[in-house]
Amino acid sequence: MAISPLAPPAFPDLPVIDGVRFSSLAAGVRYAGRKDVMLVDLVPGSAVAGVFTRSATRSANVLDCQAKLGGDPFGPAAIIVNSGNSNAFTGKHGDGSVAAICAAVSRSLGVDQKRVFTSSTGVIGERLPHDRITAKVDELTASLSPTGIADAAQAIMTTDTFAKGAGVTVDVDGKPVKIAGIAKGSGMIAPDMATMLVYIFTDALIGQPRLQGIVSALNQETFNCITVDSDTSTSDTLLVGATGTSGVDVSESTAFVTGLHDVMLDLAHQVVRDGEGATKFVTVNVTGAADNDDARKVAMAIANSPLVKTAIAGEDPNWGRVVMAIGKSGAIADRDKICIRFGDILVAEDGWIAQSYTEEAGAAYMKQPELAITVEMGLGEGKSTVWTCDLTSRYIEINADYRS
Amino acid sequence: MAISPLAPPAFPDLPVIDGVRFSSLAAGVRYAGRKDVMLVDLVPGSAVAGVFTRSATRSANVLDCQAKLGGDPFGPAAIIVNSGNSNAFTGKHGDGSVAAICAAVSRSLGVDQKRVFTSSTGVIGERLPHDRITAKVDELTASLSPTGIADAAQAIMTTDTFAKGAGVTVDVDGKPVKIAGIAKGSGMIAPDMATMLVYIFTDALIGQPRLQGIVSALNQETFNCITVDSDTSTSDTLLVGATGTSGVDVSESTAFVTGLHDVMLDLAHQVVRDGEGATKFVTVNVTGAADNDDARKVAMAIANSPLVKTAIAGEDPNWGRVVMAIGKSGAIADRDKICIRFGDILVAEDGWIAQSYTEEAGAAYMKQPELAITVEMGLGEGKSTVWTCDLTSRYIEINADYRS
Repeated sequence: MAISPLAPPAFPDLPVIDGVRFSSLAAGVRYAGRKDVMLVDLVPGSAVAGVFTRSATRSANVLDCQAKLGGDPFGPAAIIVNSGNSNAFTGKHGDGSVAAICAAVSRSLGVDQKRVFTSSTGVIGERLPHDRITAKVDELTASLSPTGIADAAQAIMTTDTFAKGAGVTVDVDGKPVKIAGIAKGSGMIAPDMATMLVYIFTDALIGQPRLQGIVSALNQETFNCITVDSDTSTSDTLLVGATGTSGVDVSESTAFVTGLHDVMLDLAHQVVRDGEGATKFVTVNVTGAADNDDARKVAMAIANSPLVKTAIAGEDPNWGRVVMAIGKSGAIADRDKICIRFGDILVAEDGWIAQSYTEEAGAAYMKQPELAITVEMGLGEGKSTVWTCDLTSRYIEINADYRS
Repeated sequence: MAISPLAPPAFPDLPVIDGVRFSSLAAGVRYAGRKDVMLVDLVPGSAVAGVFTRSATRSANVLDCQAKLGGDPFGPAAIIVNSGNSNAFTGKHGDGSVAAICAAVSRSLGVDQKRVFTSSTGVIGERLPHDRITAKVDELTASLSPTGIADAAQAIMTTDTFAKGAGVTVDVDGKPVKIAGIAKGSGMIAPDMATMLVYIFTDALIGQPRLQGIVSALNQETFNCITVDSDTSTSDTLLVGATGTSGVDVSESTAFVTGLHDVMLDLAHQVVRDGEGATKFVTVNVTGAADNDDARKVAMAIANSPLVKTAIAGEDPNWGRVVMAIGKSGAIADRDKICIRFGDILVAEDGWIAQSYTEEAGAAYMKQPELAITVEMGLGEGKSTVWTCDLTSRYIEINADYRS
């Protein structure tokens, strides 16, 4: 599959996190000859926080992770992820597959089963051939390496056209703290939670409850603000592991929060940039709404509208469809106070097209690969920013025969 | 543009409604050489009921119609509709255009301006060249005819590939009552109101408040149960005119309600059959939900899911995406009680694929042009049925360059 035109030039050089090791290999879960399983282990004492899909039909893996997060935070931890099969809607078989994989990892790595976290991503509703994974666990354990993160990012891809990684080193009281993360996600991306798989690691020293609080809050302004197609995955998982190996306590550090935010937002944007069939990266800003909830309703209505997204694909400055989306959003709106901009171009104000606007200027703007649509509602202080991509025929092609 | 493969074989022979006349012509509102304006007049005493879009950015025409519906029900009435320009988001100019058109029709037909109803459909945000319409009003008046309804149905089309009409003659206490309607709609079709233009006429004798009550109730189970793309128009209008010329009082007639229901549902289905790019007509049935609201949430989540709709386009029996849509709907769901059928084929039960299901049977079923997806939630008595179409590359093509 061709790499998205919006992809970064290369996988980044990520900081190596002391206390975290990665391995990956091809287990043949669904397809032969491609890496499809990754294993991560974390040193004893690592704190693990997570955020998961709220889907009512979420996978056995997600349910298992949610149950484990509140448990004993001591001892080593492990994360094992497969692509090719999501183990979702597989009835009691799904629970059995998770248990079998956790048992194998526990045995091989000497990690308490309650500290083994699993994710599966891929086709829904087909029984996970977990024997193919458990048969490879010892091999995965034997090849664990602190520098295996780029290969691990490859192993968790499904319809992704590029592997996604982001990292920073932040300064906390004069001492460096490292953060590195990977993600997968391309379709079935919607606002209600981190609709994808994301694994972020840091050598920061921080308690699990505090880490969980930070991760949950940052999730609201990063992964929960992206949408590709308004569909919500049954498997979405974000896990953050903090090893404490830097010895730097970040509990009260704003630098750490900012660094983690930047890594999460970078990964979230990379998922949009790999939106199925995407050719445009679109930032939707809404300001002046009655409140933040209304602002988000308007931003999401624009970002999810098939008519807005197809117009963007066609490089058509069709601001009338933006008006339509504002109208259907459910937010309070006053037609004559709405102001719309494409980039810096004032398009509409006073309930009508702006006097200064020309179709030529709008059309020229739409040819850029990165676009910003800004709506000023003129009512209050509510604001919201979300990120999305266009809707192209390629999305249809990818999803009309994904399984075959 | 090629006619939808789901179109009926021909425009139906509609009953001629005594007291209603139609005319239509080409006024060059946007394109030259195609009929784009229709005029209807109704005899004195006709009751007019209506239902409109709830969009916060609805057009000047919709606001004007809404203000007039509660007014004096006596005297003749008129409806004038143009295609090519929606007169939506045109600021104060839009109100002026509506007033100018109403004044011209009032003068030409001798109808009180408060009984002139207007609709405009087409591009949003461009000033309506209403002079082109007012210049033709006398010509429209001169050519009014009781049999002009089929031509009128042509005049209101935009991206429609076929003209839409439906009619019945019902028996009320041994006497015939006629109902005939036309509609336009193809894209920007979503659940929140009759997202299109619909005009229905009957010679029934009925007071306006009673007619309004029946129309509003029937709208909930017809036009509000269809979705093409989840986008809500700024112009949607359903007007029903009852002339009383049959002399048959239908105030308490269930036959009349049933007949009107059938005409409304027929027109609603025709809009779905002309969904932009549609190749499949899909009925989504949900039963056994906790309540009717939950049932509708699930049905609409399935019907609006881009991933479900692209799978249908690809004739892929991808029931996992139906599970995904149930999960994201917000309705109460118990994975292990959900039962899914494609037509009569049991696909999933007990939280997993059905033992009897074969991919071959599912794939063969999906090749049909008319499909039914049924979900039994296993929780309560809530139920809902909605109708939709698939999402194809043709939808993208149509909407990526509709304006150019």
